Amino acid sequence: MPDTPLLKDLLSANSEYARTFDRSELPLPPAKKLAILACMDARIDVHAITGLREGDTHVIRNAGGIATEDALRSFIISTELLGTREFLVVSHTDCGMLTFKDRDLQDRLSKKYGTNAEKINFNAFSDLEENVRTQVQRIKTNAFIPKGTPVTGFIYDVKTGKLNRVT
Amino acid sequence: MPDTPLLKDLLSANSEYARTFDRSELPLPPAKKLAILACMDARIDVHAITGLREGDTHVIRNAGGIATEDALRSFIISTELLGTREFLVVSHTDCGMLTFKDRDLQDRLSKKYGTNAEKINFNAFSDLEENVRTQVQRIKTNAFIPKGTPVTGFIYDVKTGKLNRVT
Repeated sequence: MPDTPLLKDLLSANSEYARTFDRSELPLPPAKKLAILACMDARIDVHAITGLREGDTHVIRNAGGIATEDALRSFIISTELLGTREFLVVSHTDCGMLTFKDRDLQDRLSKKYGTNAEKINFNAFSDLEENVRTQVQRIKTNAFIPKGTPVTGFIYDVKTGKLNRVT
Repeated sequence: MPDTPLLKDLLSANSEYARTFDRSELPLPPAKKLAILACMDARIDVHAITGLREGDTHVIRNAGGIATEDALRSFIISTELLGTREFLVVSHTDCGMLTFKDRDLQDRLSKKYGTNAEKINFNAFSDLEENVRTQVQRIKTNAFIPKGTPVTGFIYDVKTGKLNRVT
Protein backbone atom coordinates (compact mmCIF):
# COMPACT_ATOMS: atom_id res chain seq x y z
CA MET A 1 0.00 0.00 0.00
CA PRO A 2 1.48 3.44 -0.87
CA ASP A 3 2.12 5.82 2.02
CA THR A 4 -0.82 8.00 2.97
CA PRO A 5 -0.33 11.79 2.75
CA LEU A 6 -0.66 11.87 6.56
CA LEU A 7 2.22 9.41 6.97
CA LYS A 8 4.39 11.53 4.68
CA ASP A 9 3.62 14.61 6.79
CA LEU A 10 4.47 12.80 10.03
CA LEU A 11 7.76 11.49 8.69
CA SER A 12 8.69 14.95 7.46
CA ALA A 13 7.89 16.42 10.89
CA ASN A 14 9.94 13.67 12.50
CA SER A 15 12.95 14.47 10.30
CA GLU A 16 12.78 18.03 11.58
CA TYR A 17 12.51 16.79 15.19
CA ALA A 18 15.55 14.55 14.69
CA ARG A 19 17.52 17.37 13.02
CA THR A 20 17.39 19.48 16.19
CA PHE A 21 17.33 16.54 18.64
CA ASP A 22 19.28 17.26 21.81
CA ARG A 23 18.02 14.53 24.15
CA SER A 24 20.28 11.68 23.13
CA GLU A 25 21.71 11.07 26.58
CA LEU A 26 18.50 10.40 28.48
CA PRO A 27 18.56 7.27 30.67
CA LEU A 28 15.87 4.59 30.59
CA PRO A 29 14.32 5.25 34.04
CA PRO A 30 11.99 8.29 34.22
CA ALA A 31 13.82 11.27 35.76
CA LYS A 32 10.79 12.35 37.80
CA LYS A 33 10.12 8.79 39.02
CA LEU A 34 6.58 9.29 37.76
CA ALA A 35 4.04 7.28 35.74
CA ILE A 36 0.86 8.82 34.34
CA LEU A 37 -2.23 6.93 33.19
CA ALA A 38 -4.41 9.06 30.90
CA CYS A 39 -7.26 8.61 28.45
CA MET A 40 -6.24 8.23 24.78
CA ASP A 41 -8.39 11.28 23.94
CA ALA A 42 -6.99 13.35 21.07
CA ARG A 43 -7.25 16.62 22.99
CA ILE A 44 -4.81 15.55 25.71
CA ASP A 45 -1.09 16.11 25.19
CA VAL A 46 0.19 14.71 28.49
CA HIS A 47 3.53 16.49 28.26
CA ALA A 48 2.04 19.85 27.33
CA ILE A 49 -0.57 19.87 30.11
CA THR A 50 1.95 18.95 32.82
CA GLY A 51 5.01 20.82 31.60
CA LEU A 52 6.95 17.53 31.52
CA ARG A 53 9.57 16.73 28.91
CA GLU A 54 11.14 13.74 27.22
CA GLY A 55 12.79 11.60 29.89
CA ASP A 56 10.55 12.67 32.77
CA THR A 57 7.66 10.24 33.04
CA HIS A 58 6.16 6.98 31.85
CA VAL A 59 2.92 7.58 29.98
CA ILE A 60 0.24 4.88 29.89
CA ARG A 61 -2.87 5.62 27.84
CA ASN A 62 -6.01 3.78 26.79
CA ALA A 63 -9.66 4.43 26.06
CA GLY A 64 -11.01 6.00 29.24
CA GLY A 65 -7.79 6.07 31.25
CA ILE A 66 -8.88 2.79 32.84
CA ALA A 67 -6.66 0.83 35.25
CA THR A 68 -7.14 -2.32 33.20
CA GLU A 69 -4.99 -5.41 33.75
CA ASP A 70 -2.77 -4.07 30.99
CA ALA A 71 -2.39 -0.64 32.61
CA LEU A 72 -1.59 -2.36 35.91
CA ARG A 73 1.00 -4.52 34.11
CA SER A 74 2.59 -1.30 32.88
CA PHE A 75 2.52 0.33 36.34
CA ILE A 76 4.11 -2.77 37.90
CA ILE A 77 6.93 -2.78 35.33
CA SER A 78 7.29 0.97 35.80
CA THR A 79 7.70 0.86 39.58
CA GLU A 80 9.38 -2.54 40.01
CA LEU A 81 11.93 -2.34 37.20
CA LEU A 82 12.25 1.36 36.47
CA GLY A 83 11.89 2.93 39.88
CA THR A 84 8.80 5.16 39.58
CA ARG A 85 7.38 6.18 42.95
CA GLU A 86 4.33 8.30 42.16
CA PHE A 87 1.35 7.83 39.84
CA LEU A 88 -1.29 10.09 38.31
CA VAL A 89 -4.62 9.18 36.71
CA VAL A 90 -5.97 11.67 34.17
CA SER A 91 -9.56 11.41 32.94
CA HIS A 92 -11.23 14.36 31.18
CA THR A 93 -14.49 16.17 30.48
CA ASP A 94 -16.49 15.26 27.35
CA CYS A 95 -15.02 11.73 27.36
CA GLY A 96 -16.19 9.42 24.57
CA MET A 97 -16.60 6.64 27.16
CA LEU A 98 -19.63 8.49 28.54
CA THR A 99 -21.41 8.33 25.19
CA PHE A 100 -22.15 4.62 24.83
CA LYS A 101 -22.95 1.43 26.70
CA ASP A 102 -20.74 -1.66 26.38
CA ARG A 103 -23.74 -3.75 25.38
CA ASP A 104 -24.70 -1.43 22.51
CA LEU A 105 -21.18 -1.42 21.08
CA GLN A 106 -20.91 -5.20 21.43
CA ASP A 107 -24.20 -5.63 19.53
CA ARG A 108 -23.16 -3.17 16.85
CA LEU A 109 -19.82 -4.91 16.25
CA SER A 110 -21.32 -8.41 16.33
CA LYS A 111 -23.82 -7.41 13.67
CA LYS A 112 -21.32 -5.49 11.53
CA TYR A 113 -18.55 -8.11 11.50
CA GLY A 114 -20.55 -11.33 11.95
CA THR A 115 -18.34 -12.26 14.92
CA ASN A 116 -19.55 -12.28 18.51
CA ALA A 117 -18.16 -9.24 20.35
CA GLU A 118 -19.96 -9.95 23.64
CA LYS A 119 -16.80 -10.86 25.50
CA ILE A 120 -15.08 -7.53 24.95
CA ASN A 121 -15.26 -5.40 28.07
CA PHE A 122 -15.16 -1.88 26.66
CA ASN A 123 -15.17 -0.22 30.09
CA ALA A 124 -17.68 2.51 29.19
CA PHE A 125 -18.77 4.46 32.26
CA SER A 126 -21.41 7.00 33.22
CA ASP A 127 -19.88 9.07 36.02
CA LEU A 128 -16.55 10.82 35.47
CA GLU A 129 -15.58 11.44 39.08
CA GLU A 130 -16.65 8.02 40.27
CA ASN A 131 -14.67 6.46 37.43
CA VAL A 132 -11.49 8.29 38.41
CA ARG A 133 -11.91 7.21 42.04
CA THR A 134 -12.41 3.61 40.94
CA GLN A 135 -9.23 3.61 38.82
CA VAL A 136 -7.16 5.23 41.59
CA GLN A 137 -8.45 2.60 44.01
CA ARG A 138 -7.60 -0.25 41.64
CA ILE A 139 -4.03 0.94 41.44
CA LYS A 140 -3.68 1.57 45.18
CA THR A 141 -5.00 -1.89 46.07
CA ASN A 142 -3.02 -3.85 43.49
CA ALA A 143 -1.02 -6.58 45.18
CA PHE A 144 2.19 -5.76 43.29
CA ILE A 145 2.32 -1.99 43.74
CA PRO A 146 4.06 -0.77 46.91
CA LYS A 147 1.59 0.27 49.61
CA GLY A 148 1.62 4.02 50.15
CA THR A 149 2.56 4.93 46.58
CA PRO A 150 0.88 8.32 45.97
CA VAL A 151 -1.82 7.99 43.28
CA THR A 152 -3.65 11.22 42.46
CA GLY A 153 -6.72 11.41 40.23
CA PHE A 154 -7.62 14.33 37.96
CA ILE A 155 -10.25 15.34 35.48
CA TYR A 156 -8.70 17.40 32.71
CA ASP A 157 -11.07 20.07 31.40
CA VAL A 158 -10.85 20.06 27.58
CA LYS A 159 -12.46 23.53 27.45
CA THR A 160 -9.98 25.26 29.77
CA GLY A 161 -6.80 23.15 29.72
CA LYS A 162 -7.04 22.81 33.50
CA LEU A 163 -6.32 19.68 35.56
CA ASN A 164 -8.98 19.48 38.28
CA ARG A 165 -8.25 17.28 41.21
CA VAL A 166 -10.59 14.44 42.19
CA THR A 167 -8.63 12.50 44.83
CA MET B 1 -1.01 12.54 52.42
CA PRO B 2 0.45 16.03 51.71
CA ASP B 3 1.17 16.87 48.07
CA THR B 4 4.59 15.86 46.85
CA PRO B 5 6.89 18.63 45.54
CA LEU B 6 6.57 17.03 42.09
CA LEU B 7 2.77 17.32 42.19
CA LYS B 8 3.03 20.98 43.13
CA ASP B 9 5.36 21.59 40.18
CA LEU B 10 3.02 19.83 37.75
CA LEU B 11 0.00 21.78 38.96
CA SER B 12 1.90 25.01 38.63
CA ALA B 13 2.95 24.10 35.06
CA ASN B 14 -0.67 23.19 34.29
CA SER B 15 -1.90 26.59 35.53
CA GLU B 16 0.45 28.20 33.06
CA TYR B 17 -0.77 25.89 30.26
CA ALA B 18 -4.39 26.77 31.08
CA ARG B 19 -3.61 30.49 31.24
CA THR B 20 -2.57 30.54 27.58
CA PHE B 21 -4.92 27.74 26.45
CA ASP B 22 -6.33 28.33 22.96
CA ARG B 23 -7.66 24.87 22.05
CA SER B 24 -11.07 25.04 23.71
CA GLU B 25 -13.06 24.33 20.55
CA LEU B 26 -11.52 21.00 19.58
CA PRO B 27 -14.05 18.28 18.74
CA LEU B 28 -13.97 14.78 20.27
CA PRO B 29 -12.95 12.83 17.10
CA PRO B 30 -9.26 13.07 16.16
CA ALA B 31 -8.75 15.60 13.35
CA LYS B 32 -6.17 13.44 11.57
CA LYS B 33 -8.34 10.28 11.89
CA LEU B 34 -5.27 8.66 13.42
CA ALA B 35 -4.53 6.42 16.42
CA ILE B 36 -0.98 5.73 17.62
CA LEU B 37 0.11 2.87 19.87
CA ALA B 38 3.46 3.57 21.52
CA CYS B 39 5.57 2.25 24.36
CA MET B 40 5.17 4.09 27.69
CA ASP B 41 8.92 4.84 27.67
CA ALA B 42 9.78 8.16 29.28
CA ARG B 43 11.92 9.30 26.35
CA ILE B 44 9.03 9.29 23.87
CA ASP B 45 6.85 12.39 23.55
CA VAL B 46 4.45 11.14 20.86
CA HIS B 47 3.33 14.63 19.87
CA ALA B 48 6.83 16.04 19.70
CA ILE B 49 8.28 13.23 17.56
CA THR B 50 5.41 13.37 15.02
CA GLY B 51 4.71 17.10 14.96
CA LEU B 52 1.10 16.40 15.95
CA ARG B 53 -0.89 18.69 18.22
CA GLU B 54 -3.79 18.51 20.62
CA GLY B 55 -6.85 17.31 18.75
CA ASP B 56 -4.99 15.36 16.07
CA THR B 57 -4.65 11.75 17.21
CA HIS B 58 -5.63 9.15 19.75
CA VAL B 59 -2.62 8.00 21.75
CA ILE B 60 -2.55 4.53 23.27
CA ARG B 61 0.50 3.63 25.36
CA ASN B 62 1.63 0.73 27.51
CA ALA B 63 4.80 -1.11 28.51
CA GLY B 64 6.32 -2.24 25.21
CA GLY B 65 3.75 -0.75 22.85
CA ILE B 66 2.04 -4.13 22.80
CA ALA B 67 -1.27 -4.74 20.99
CA THR B 68 -2.76 -6.27 24.13
CA GLU B 69 -6.48 -6.91 24.44
CA ASP B 70 -6.71 -3.53 26.11
CA ALA B 71 -4.90 -1.74 23.29
CA LEU B 72 -7.16 -3.52 20.78
CA ARG B 73 -10.20 -2.41 22.83
CA SER B 74 -8.93 1.15 22.49
CA PHE B 75 -8.31 0.82 18.74
CA ILE B 76 -11.81 -0.61 18.22
CA ILE B 77 -13.42 2.28 20.11
CA SER B 78 -11.17 4.68 18.22
CA THR B 79 -12.14 3.48 14.76
CA GLU B 80 -15.73 2.36 15.35
CA LEU B 81 -16.96 5.28 17.45
CA LEU B 82 -14.54 8.08 16.69
CA GLY B 83 -13.74 7.53 13.04
CA THR B 84 -9.99 6.91 12.96
CA ARG B 85 -8.79 5.32 9.71
CA GLU B 86 -5.05 4.86 10.13
CA PHE B 87 -2.89 3.38 12.90
CA LEU B 88 0.78 3.55 13.86
CA VAL B 89 2.77 1.32 16.19
CA VAL B 90 5.84 2.89 17.80
CA SER B 91 8.42 0.75 19.58
CA HIS B 92 11.89 2.09 20.34
CA THR B 93 15.56 1.27 20.82
CA ASP B 94 16.87 0.49 24.34
CA CYS B 95 13.41 -0.71 25.42
CA GLY B 96 13.08 -1.91 29.01
CA MET B 97 11.07 -4.90 27.77
CA LEU B 98 14.27 -6.32 26.29
CA THR B 99 15.96 -6.38 29.70
CA PHE B 100 14.01 -9.08 31.54
CA LYS B 101 12.08 -12.33 31.15
CA ASP B 102 8.45 -12.62 32.25
CA ARG B 103 9.31 -15.59 34.43
CA ASP B 104 12.03 -13.73 36.33
CA LEU B 105 9.77 -10.77 37.07
CA GLN B 106 6.93 -13.09 38.13
CA ASP B 107 9.28 -14.89 40.55
CA ARG B 108 10.66 -11.64 41.92
CA LEU B 109 7.18 -10.21 42.58
CA SER B 110 5.84 -13.45 44.05
CA LYS B 111 8.73 -13.55 46.51
CA LYS B 112 8.61 -9.84 47.35
CA TYR B 113 4.85 -9.57 47.92
CA GLY B 114 3.98 -13.11 49.04
CA THR B 115 1.31 -13.29 46.32
CA ASN B 116 1.57 -15.47 43.24
CA ALA B 117 2.37 -13.32 40.19
CA GLU B 118 2.65 -16.24 37.76
CA LYS B 119 -0.51 -15.33 35.89
CA ILE B 120 0.63 -11.87 34.88
CA ASN B 121 1.72 -11.84 31.27
CA PHE B 122 4.29 -9.04 31.20
CA ASN B 123 4.89 -9.30 27.45
CA ALA B 124 8.67 -8.96 27.64
CA PHE B 125 10.31 -9.66 24.27
CA SER B 126 13.78 -10.24 22.87
CA ASP B 127 13.65 -8.94 19.29
CA LEU B 128 12.58 -5.36 18.60
CA GLU B 129 11.72 -5.68 14.91
CA GLU B 130 9.96 -8.98 15.29
CA ASN B 131 7.95 -7.54 18.15
CA VAL B 132 6.78 -4.58 16.06
CA ARG B 133 5.75 -6.91 13.22
CA THR B 134 3.82 -9.08 15.67
CA GLN B 135 1.91 -6.11 17.10
CA VAL B 136 1.10 -4.72 13.64
CA GLN B 137 -0.17 -8.14 12.62
CA ARG B 138 -2.35 -8.47 15.71
CA ILE B 139 -4.04 -5.20 14.88
CA LYS B 140 -4.45 -5.97 11.19
CA THR B 141 -6.01 -9.35 11.87
CA ASN B 142 -8.35 -8.26 14.65
CA ALA B 143 -11.93 -9.23 13.81
CA PHE B 144 -13.33 -5.82 14.72
CA ILE B 145 -10.93 -3.55 12.89
CA PRO B 146 -11.81 -2.77 9.25
CA LYS B 147 -9.77 -4.83 6.78
CA GLY B 148 -7.33 -2.67 4.87
CA THR B 149 -6.80 -0.11 7.64
CA PRO B 150 -3.19 1.07 7.19
CA VAL B 151 -1.07 0.02 10.19
CA THR B 152 2.58 1.09 10.02
CA GLY B 153 5.22 -0.06 12.49
CA PHE B 154 8.23 1.99 13.59
CA ILE B 155 11.19 1.77 15.89
CA TYR B 156 11.94 5.15 17.41
CA ASP B 157 15.65 5.69 17.97
CA VAL B 158 16.11 7.27 21.42
CA LYS B 159 19.64 8.36 20.49
CA THR B 160 18.70 10.28 17.33
CA GLY B 161 15.01 11.17 17.66
CA LYS B 162 14.33 9.37 14.38
CA LEU B 163 11.36 7.15 13.56
CA ASN B 164 12.68 4.17 11.57
CA ARG B 165 10.19 2.19 9.61
CA VAL B 166 9.75 -1.55 10.15
CA THR B 167 6.61 -2.41 8.15
